[in-house]
Amino acid sequence: MKEFNLDDAIRKVKDFPKEGILFYDITSILTNPAAFSFCIDRMVELYKDENFDAVAAAEARGFLFAAPFCERLGIPLILIRKKGKLPGDTLTKTYALEYGEDSIQIHKADVPVGGKVLLVDDLIATGGTLKAAAELLEEGGATVPAAFGVVGLPFLAYDKVLSGLKIDTLINYDSE
Amino acid sequence: MKEFNLDDAIRKVKDFPKEGILFYDITSILTNPAAFSFCIDRMVELYKDENFDAVAAAEARGFLFAAPFCERLGIPLILIRKKGKLPGDTLTKTYALEYGEDSIQIHKADVPVGGKVLLVDDLIATGGTLKAAAELLEEGGATVPAAFGVVGLPFLAYDKVLSGLKIDTLINYDSE
Repeated sequence: MKEFNLDDAIRKVKDFPKEGILFYDITSILTNPAAFSFCIDRMVELYKDENFDAVAAAEARGFLFAAPFCERLGIPLILIRKKGKLPGDTLTKTYALEYGEDSIQIHKADVPVGGKVLLVDDLIATGGTLKAAAELLEEGGATVPAAFGVVGLPFLAYDKVLSGLKIDTLINYDSE
Repeated sequence: MKEFNLDDAIRKVKDFPKEGILFYDITSILTNPAAFSFCIDRMVELYKDENFDAVAAAEARGFLFAAPFCERLGIPLILIRKKGKLPGDTLTKTYALEYGEDSIQIHKADVPVGGKVLLVDDLIATGGTLKAAAELLEEGGATVPAAFGVVGLPFLAYDKVLSGLKIDTLINYDSE
């Protein structure tokens, strides 16, 4: 496995989406083919022997890392979308945000009943969306033993929210 | 190149997102690894000798096909996003929809000045979003000679809206 300084490839944007937030921008990975391939190579290395029955990816940035990973390993890809985007029969979960709430959906028929699903997102912060996704997949009959994020923000305590899941990230950042 | 009946892998959903629309659902490609790899293989075959400087993909389903394609060929990937999602300096284009209007953005710094960009989406219908994207990229200093969609709906006349672009699709559907 080649080494690569992923931190160099992640742009940090102050005060986005609101004042006081330092935003870790993965679009600068996508425009850097060496950085992007490094991420996908590392994902393959982490999970190639784990025999996941499917990957579930969070809209929309999670799609960018999950799609090449699934295509390389030949694993079915389930989309976790905002309410109203999926045309088939769905399972829905409403979960609390800092202010208000949000709803996510998956196609019911996409869930591998009795199978193991890996959650994928670009960045794991509070873990709220991934926890709601794990609950949806379990409701559909799958188990969710693990979650992956390119970037992790462990100071937001996602390990407590996602307790019971094995969580891998390629790079972590501390609070400023 | 292996043959594959892509039509079998595309779910058709009636009356989505509204009555009278037959929706061509590509999520059934994503959960079918043979179908998904067929699409990416075909994209690579179509464009491997074209020397595009970047690919620009439309949020969110376009990401799913553009990401594996870019990762395989080592081409930078530019995101075309709804307004407010990109943290850096952006270029913005507002364009008309059937009812009302919408705005898309790209990161200004991502545009390869003087370079050639391929547009990618999952499905090309009216071509309105891709036309706005082409204008944005040209405003940023690139040229946009071609567009790709997994599915094409030529009865909606995208060839007129995107005149001047070479358009490739893997499968086309006629009006019902």
